[in-house]
Amino acid sequence: MTIDSKPLFGKVALLGIGLIGSSMAYAIRRAGLAAHIAGYTRSPESLEAARAIGFADTLHDTPEAAVREADFVVLATPVGAFAQLAQSIAPHLKAGAIVSDVGSVKAAVIHEVGPHIPAGVHFVPAHPIAGTEQSGPEAGFPELFDGRWCVLTPPAGTDPQAVETVRTFWRRCGSEVEIMDAKHHDLVLAITSHVPHLIAYNIVGTAADLETVTQGEVIKYSAGGFRDFTRIAASDPTMWRDVFLNNREAVLEMLGRFNEDLTALQRAIRWGDGEALFNLFTRTRAIRRSIVEAGQDTPAPNFGRSRARKP
Amino acid sequence: MTIDSKPLFGKVALLGIGLIGSSMAYAIRRAGLAAHIAGYTRSPESLEAARAIGFADTLHDTPEAAVREADFVVLATPVGAFAQLAQSIAPHLKAGAIVSDVGSVKAAVIHEVGPHIPAGVHFVPAHPIAGTEQSGPEAGFPELFDGRWCVLTPPAGTDPQAVETVRTFWRRCGSEVEIMDAKHHDLVLAITSHVPHLIAYNIVGTAADLETVTQGEVIKYSAGGFRDFTRIAASDPTMWRDVFLNNREAVLEMLGRFNEDLTALQRAIRWGDGEALFNLFTRTRAIRRSIVEAGQDTPAPNFGRSRARKP
Repeated sequence: MTIDSKPLFGKVALLGIGLIGSSMAYAIRRAGLAAHIAGYTRSPESLEAARAIGFADTLHDTPEAAVREADFVVLATPVGAFAQLAQSIAPHLKAGAIVSDVGSVKAAVIHEVGPHIPAGVHFVPAHPIAGTEQSGPEAGFPELFDGRWCVLTPPAGTDPQAVETVRTFWRRCGSEVEIMDAKHHDLVLAITSHVPHLIAYNIVGTAADLETVTQGEVIKYSAGGFRDFTRIAASDPTMWRDVFLNNREAVLEMLGRFNEDLTALQRAIRWGDGEALFNLFTRTRAIRRSIVEAGQDTPAPNFGRSRARKP
Repeated sequence: MTIDSKPLFGKVALLGIGLIGSSMAYAIRRAGLAAHIAGYTRSPESLEAARAIGFADTLHDTPEAAVREADFVVLATPVGAFAQLAQSIAPHLKAGAIVSDVGSVKAAVIHEVGPHIPAGVHFVPAHPIAGTEQSGPEAGFPELFDGRWCVLTPPAGTDPQAVETVRTFWRRCGSEVEIMDAKHHDLVLAITSHVPHLIAYNIVGTAADLETVTQGEVIKYSAGGFRDFTRIAASDPTMWRDVFLNNREAVLEMLGRFNEDLTALQRAIRWGDGEALFNLFTRTRAIRRSIVEAGQDTPAPNFGRSRARKP
């Protein structure tokens, strides 16, 4: 198709150049999606690092400068900074530009960002469901979005052509695209991402605080399962703080269900109800199988992780 | 050293030839630790599979036949079967033989198995802290124990020479060996392994039961974190049922602490206490770093898992 061989945008502005922003720059370059990639970060260290790596054509220390003449503007900082960013860039947005984001929560983002978007500019909220536990401009790589889902949550009345352009953008970055209601997105992500992160952070904290088991023991014997949780609990603290503050309702709802179920399991252990335990443990195996079949994880044992060795 | 070049044992009997038993057979072969490896399983399918693979010299459908003339006997079934196994083999054990096991709980195993061990036979309980989410004789591989810890929990009065022999055995299987009190082992493993498995099983169950989010959505969007939990929740149901039934006290103790901490986090989310969230999320990053530095996990992002792709 001809559309696949010419840049989708003249200029793309990435406001935030951490793991997601820098990976987008690589993916944009790989697919030839923009004639010019501009990056913004308020951190002088990140700006310096990005300059050394060279994934952007221009780098800016103000969002206003980055968005000038941009056709596609992506908010890619932690979501807590979105409202301020949107307010700052609003007067500088080009007519007909598309503003999008990569936030892990969507209803709050629409609520915070939407009112700042000027007439004649389109707002198409998006969430690429991809990442690693690492952060910063050095953490990005072009394949991050390959085979992963990107969810768009355009509010009612969004220009269909703008939605279509953002869909094409993410497809050409390697993703599959789904369109969803923002509130439903937040509920789905609460169970597939936010609550898992919360309980991972929580158990790592619980383990760190024990007085009967030393931290050295926790680290030494982590191969029994705990180490998987520590990977998730090593994710960016600011990003995740903002997720929980901005998806409160859905997270508390899912956490309530998790707690109910855990209390039942706890009771089964206390009363020696082996059948209840066995039944749950059998049921959960099928879900893993489906995820591997859906291409969302590797079938290799232990994620195929290369065996870590003492230095 | 001369001791490293000659077999440690004439005959080793592996009672149970699933992931751990079959991996032991490979590791024994790799290090030349036994002149003869005998395997036992009560499952005709596993017996047939093991025969086809060929990791054992002889295979038996009764434990009595497998332990005859064995110098080293290892209980490697789920721990719920240990008492019955120990009772069955007791009259057939060779004088001077060492009985050991690979159970994930130790106080209960000592309590259940200990009384069956005849005079003149040594009992050295062991727990190699290694595994994958897969099970059965096809799942084993020789490197499973490399760089992992194996904990021995010999009861007071155990023959020091027998303990030393088991330590040498596991070292030559690739492990590092630690000696620990059984009750302390059970507490350490409750937090590093048992509770993590329980909460992984639990959240996968919670997700499967939702009526507002479909199972298809849970699977599609699992790359946000959930998929890590499904790997753990795909572990062998019988083995894990037996772990929880046999380490009840320590698991309930650790679960109580986990719940307390989770309630505090839940409250922080409800009241918008971003500082409490940020502080915890920062603290947990350091633990991950220590685990990677200790050689207990890979530093590669996402465990270095190869990107899964749709078929």
